[in-house]
Amino acid sequence: MKATFYEGNKKLSLVDKEIEAPKEGDVRIKVAYAGVCGTDMHIYHGMMDGRVAIPLTIGHEMSGTVDAVGKEVTDYKIGDKVVVRPLDDRLAKPSDKGFNHICEELKFIGIDSPGAMQQYWNVPAFTLHKLPDTTDLKLAALVEPLSVATHDVRMSELKPNEYAVVLGGGPIGMLIALVAKEMGANVIISEVNESRITKAKEMGLEAVSPIETDLVAYVKDKTEGRLADVVFEVAGVQSTLDIMTEISGIRGRIVMVAIHGQPKPVNLFKFFWKELKLIGARVYEKEDYEKSIQLINDNKLPFSEMITGVESISKIQEVFEGIDKNPNGMKTLIDCQSV
Amino acid sequence: MKATFYEGNKKLSLVDKEIEAPKEGDVRIKVAYAGVCGTDMHIYHGMMDGRVAIPLTIGHEMSGTVDAVGKEVTDYKIGDKVVVRPLDDRLAKPSDKGFNHICEELKFIGIDSPGAMQQYWNVPAFTLHKLPDTTDLKLAALVEPLSVATHDVRMSELKPNEYAVVLGGGPIGMLIALVAKEMGANVIISEVNESRITKAKEMGLEAVSPIETDLVAYVKDKTEGRLADVVFEVAGVQSTLDIMTEISGIRGRIVMVAIHGQPKPVNLFKFFWKELKLIGARVYEKEDYEKSIQLINDNKLPFSEMITGVESISKIQEVFEGIDKNPNGMKTLIDCQSV
Repeated sequence: MKATFYEGNKKLSLVDKEIEAPKEGDVRIKVAYAGVCGTDMHIYHGMMDGRVAIPLTIGHEMSGTVDAVGKEVTDYKIGDKVVVRPLDDRLAKPSDKGFNHICEELKFIGIDSPGAMQQYWNVPAFTLHKLPDTTDLKLAALVEPLSVATHDVRMSELKPNEYAVVLGGGPIGMLIALVAKEMGANVIISEVNESRITKAKEMGLEAVSPIETDLVAYVKDKTEGRLADVVFEVAGVQSTLDIMTEISGIRGRIVMVAIHGQPKPVNLFKFFWKELKLIGARVYEKEDYEKSIQLINDNKLPFSEMITGVESISKIQEVFEGIDKNPNGMKTLIDCQSV
Repeated sequence: MKATFYEGNKKLSLVDKEIEAPKEGDVRIKVAYAGVCGTDMHIYHGMMDGRVAIPLTIGHEMSGTVDAVGKEVTDYKIGDKVVVRPLDDRLAKPSDKGFNHICEELKFIGIDSPGAMQQYWNVPAFTLHKLPDTTDLKLAALVEPLSVATHDVRMSELKPNEYAVVLGGGPIGMLIALVAKEMGANVIISEVNESRITKAKEMGLEAVSPIETDLVAYVKDKTEGRLADVVFEVAGVQSTLDIMTEISGIRGRIVMVAIHGQPKPVNLFKFFWKELKLIGARVYEKEDYEKSIQLINDNKLPFSEMITGVESISKIQEVFEGIDKNPNGMKTLIDCQSV
């Protein structure tokens, strides 16, 4: 079979590898599609070389079918359509209080162990979610990032008719906006990239540029002075940190989706004054996957427009180079069976 | 009657004033005791001269008895023991979403209008809470700051047997610790002032100095690795902001009680990584007052030890000067009838 390796130094290679039999509790998946995540790009850029055991097959967004099962696996059979929730929480401790998805000793499959960017992938059966037979496997490769979005929205306790502002219209921001809108909220995306604004509008979303529009005044006007009930900080820059506390109304909830590598100034006075909440949100739990699988299978949201490229696994190097060159793209999928 | 005025420039004066009849919806209170709050000290230091209409009678922590009622007032009669919830929310708008205690146009009585540091005080009847006849009026002067504490604890959603760390052992921090302990939580106060540590211990609270003790290791050890379920940031300095995200366990809640006048660096990565919540909390709501009145009337907590001085209203200038000189005191009450 063909597999890819991140070799360090912005190099990805395609190699021949033996197909392995799954261990007792494992399942071998014939990977259909693997999505390229921002984290994969971080790895490609060498930002995570301290964590990644080079050479490593990366990738954690995917869809596929069961190809073989270990002898202890009874819940899955060959041919089942599946996605992987790439969280290995087997080292969870009582001090994690049952929040195993973010347990202290969490291993993230595709970063801390081999990932999906190969033709066949062996993973523990407990990481799988079964898909309905009718599910489109291209769209199903969005289940993982969509689950980030469903988790973020769930953590925000967003209610129908509330106003949500999404700061940052990349793939996760866009999925958050779609999920929030689907549940009956009013959603505004704030994004500086014009082509992403256009993309958002094509998907039926409201999007404004905070460079061209006074975002605080815009949100205030839209909400008759209430300002935002929920803000999703997805952009990860100081300007969005500065504005998140301004556009939040009384008792507003701000979900921290972005990864801020360094401590950064936050207007804590506004948290006190308006009784704001800041809610950290990371990955997803089982119910978020279930919700996302349902949304993908219902296929009422413009998910297919999120997929801006599908490329053969044999072009792995070009795919990563291409994403680097084109900041306008949303989600590129790797077709793992096309070689 | 005697009244006090903040005159600006660290000057407080005692003056003679006519006793006024209460307006239709007002009540005249014979003020028993008025507590000196940190905010009163800020005013005294000139930090709020832009907001305060000098000369102004300040003070918003108090207890007293009804002395006269306006003709529309039916719920109160002369002699009733009362405290004032000093929030004038008459300008609340729909955009405040019913959170009138922090409405955009809130007027804080004792800052934005005359306060309690006088013998007789006319206030709108809707600001009153009736006390049981058995209530000790000295202790009742603590209802206002205690309600800040009950509000903070309520906002934290603290549960029995959880671990709470209070960063800062001043009056509010100490009251938060007492309330948190009373509801069955395990409480640790972190405080640098040795005399406050001693005071906390005298009140049966656990208190450590983060200068002498590695607070993260201490909390980790006490909680068998879970770290704090709830942190109250009451100190308002960078070092407590730095440590609050370190001592919080997975899904920990951090209540922002302190007023940080400027944006300050916060470790947002930890919010993401451990799914922490930051909860802004300001003043109190009606139910917080009711809870505090019950606690004061039950008198099972060492409230009397919180009162470290009772002085005649005629010594108003010396009282403020004395608090400035003695950082070890907790709560000084002004006896408004002793002249």
